[in-house]
Amino acid sequence: MSNLDIKAFVFDAYGTLFDVHSVIDKCNELFPEKGEEISQLWRQKQLEYSFLRQLMGTYKTFYSITKDALYYACVQIGVDLSDEKEKKLLDSYLELAHYEEVEGVLGELKSYQTAIFSNGSLDMLIPLVEQSSFGHLLDEVLTVDEVKQYKPTPMSYQLVLQKLGVKREEVLFMSSNPWDIAGASNFGFNTAWINRQDRVMDELGVKPHFVYKDLNGIVEHKS
Amino acid sequence: MSNLDIKAFVFDAYGTLFDVHSVIDKCNELFPEKGEEISQLWRQKQLEYSFLRQLMGTYKTFYSITKDALYYACVQIGVDLSDEKEKKLLDSYLELAHYEEVEGVLGELKSYQTAIFSNGSLDMLIPLVEQSSFGHLLDEVLTVDEVKQYKPTPMSYQLVLQKLGVKREEVLFMSSNPWDIAGASNFGFNTAWINRQDRVMDELGVKPHFVYKDLNGIVEHKS
Repeated sequence: MSNLDIKAFVFDAYGTLFDVHSVIDKCNELFPEKGEEISQLWRQKQLEYSFLRQLMGTYKTFYSITKDALYYACVQIGVDLSDEKEKKLLDSYLELAHYEEVEGVLGELKSYQTAIFSNGSLDMLIPLVEQSSFGHLLDEVLTVDEVKQYKPTPMSYQLVLQKLGVKREEVLFMSSNPWDIAGASNFGFNTAWINRQDRVMDELGVKPHFVYKDLNGIVEHKS
Repeated sequence: MSNLDIKAFVFDAYGTLFDVHSVIDKCNELFPEKGEEISQLWRQKQLEYSFLRQLMGTYKTFYSITKDALYYACVQIGVDLSDEKEKKLLDSYLELAHYEEVEGVLGELKSYQTAIFSNGSLDMLIPLVEQSSFGHLLDEVLTVDEVKQYKPTPMSYQLVLQKLGVKREEVLFMSSNPWDIAGASNFGFNTAWINRQDRVMDELGVKPHFVYKDLNGIVEHKS
């Protein structure tokens, strides 16, 4: 039992609800020798480009950024990215598997507001949620694209309050990304870091309120 | 000869004038097995933390960030960072070697304004410039710390105009960091990417105006 009065359980998408490992598998399939290296650089640049474009004030959608990052990774690593391979790789983002506990946990939260809040644009998020088995258990799919402010800016998290009609302290926000947890804590959400890979928290001056190895732990915050 | 009317030659510090390789050497010396891995993660987190703190609105100096990033890298990689090792590693940033062409190039630009413009704070930059052989050839050492805005925000580059009394199009800005070149081009500077390691330019929607493998190329922009 928790002392918090949580009204909304809000989830990051990539790495938190959905396992991006199938993107890595697709990279390995299309580039047998260099799949690992490409998928790693692709993900690194995808994040970096969202941060840098936010800093420069030149927002474009996460789908476009994901495409740019893939192109960069392939040129830098020296592999040929055909139109067909590009399509297969980008499409793999629309068909990610989810972590096994997701459906059960969302099922337990039926009496609360539940939402995804992601840097992803709706052209990525909607097909992803629709092909999953738990779309009906989510009240909202929220994207930073609506305000053109990438996480972890405070302005981005503000959208959650506006859309769900709750206060900061009534939100429990889950992410497996340390920088997202830092941003959400800094904004004033209660945060649960889903530390699936037993990593160390980043040194950004803010800590998660809770740390779990998967999403099962969060149900203790039902009041 | 160039068609540009350049009045100020402005240089990024780390990787552009100064070679950060000696930091890597110090890492290898103190952590014989894991020096390469530590120095790579340290540098990655140093940049990432400056971007993320800017996005979150929780600025702290580059010296503090550099310390935080080192601490993170050591914990994540599982090596013991004693106070003594920490001091040696941070001190290595104050004693970086410069690239061999720097003094000659600055010597050729005596009739122009010349400046360093860096994310580094003065506690890092001043000792570094003072121990170099070319401090007397620089008119200004400018730091984002004065405005508490990390590059690549447009607000950070604005400081250069204010301090040097020039217009955007009268500046030629040199950096070896693609994200810094993207930010400076986006702001309206003329930019020369010093691509020492033959890398691919990032896909951020802006390109450098010029690309050189070292600083020698820039003297063609003397009018």
